[in-house]
Amino acid sequence: MTDIQELLLSRIRDVADYPEPGVMFKDITPLLADPAAFTALTDALAEIAERVGATKVVGLEARGFILGAPVAVRAGLGFIPVRKAGKLPGATLSQTYELEYGSAEIEVHAEDLSGDDRVLIVDDVLATGGTAEASIQLIRRAGAEIAGLAVLMELGFLNGRSRLEPALTGAPLDALLVV
Amino acid sequence: MTDIQELLLSRIRDVADYPEPGVMFKDITPLLADPAAFTALTDALAEIAERVGATKVVGLEARGFILGAPVAVRAGLGFIPVRKAGKLPGATLSQTYELEYGSAEIEVHAEDLSGDDRVLIVDDVLATGGTAEASIQLIRRAGAEIAGLAVLMELGFLNGRSRLEPALTGAPLDALLVV
Repeated sequence: MTDIQELLLSRIRDVADYPEPGVMFKDITPLLADPAAFTALTDALAEIAERVGATKVVGLEARGFILGAPVAVRAGLGFIPVRKAGKLPGATLSQTYELEYGSAEIEVHAEDLSGDDRVLIVDDVLATGGTAEASIQLIRRAGAEIAGLAVLMELGFLNGRSRLEPALTGAPLDALLVV
Repeated sequence: MTDIQELLLSRIRDVADYPEPGVMFKDITPLLADPAAFTALTDALAEIAERVGATKVVGLEARGFILGAPVAVRAGLGFIPVRKAGKLPGATLSQTYELEYGSAEIEVHAEDLSGDDRVLIVDDVLATGGTAEASIQLIRRAGAEIAGLAVLMELGFLNGRSRLEPALTGAPLDALLVV
């Protein structure tokens, strides 16, 4: 494990039984509150954005906003929010996806992406990959290319990577930590 | 109007009748998508954080995350999210406030702020000031001092400034644009 990985991991807190009994939640707020750790995280994700040749950074509401926006500024790229349904005021494309119980819907402003764009999607945690898969589909429908998906933390036991690999069609999935 | 103000204003889009008929919504997503404008915004807010001697940046869910997180990284300060009720996994303080119809509740992790902290609150738009006022109360109850409130845009006709001045007790309210 690198020094940066050790720093990041040391600032992630396990919270038992959240959001429901039996789940161990990975809380990133101690990391955000530590300027050295938050800066290291931003730099590491911005390096990925540069390596994959991204032209835009997409952040997934809401924690993906906190990670993705500084990465966009750091890498000198535009930031595009993917939001829950009904939150974006302009003309949107939307994508519905299945949850364990029921379904959810995410949206992006259609005009924010074009055929010239290569998008790095940023989020905090890769769990089952449902939201990430829907955002890949959404971004492709907006005409843009997927440059990659970058997360702070991959929950390996949930196998989100296997689910996403067909959708990514060769674009890299980078996780700074696998737990 | 300065060059930076002209740049920022040129990237804000008016959307009529959102979220309801008769309302002209100020959409900041074109600004976020423009790296030069988003960087200028981040730098301007980070200068305010330095000027007021902030030790932490608080961002208000959800658009305040997109603005506040890069400001924290740029200024080398910790970032603290103030979230809608039920979204933070640890022990929280919460604050209820009135809306036009009904009420809303925001929360912060109690341990994220201490008596040594001076907090700059960051949000995109100051409208009636209800959420900002509740967040000032919340941060004070967590033991921290308010260093200031900084927004991209103040909707002057809604008089949020008058409402907030008593709560701010002398801390500055900076708006990069007043529309």
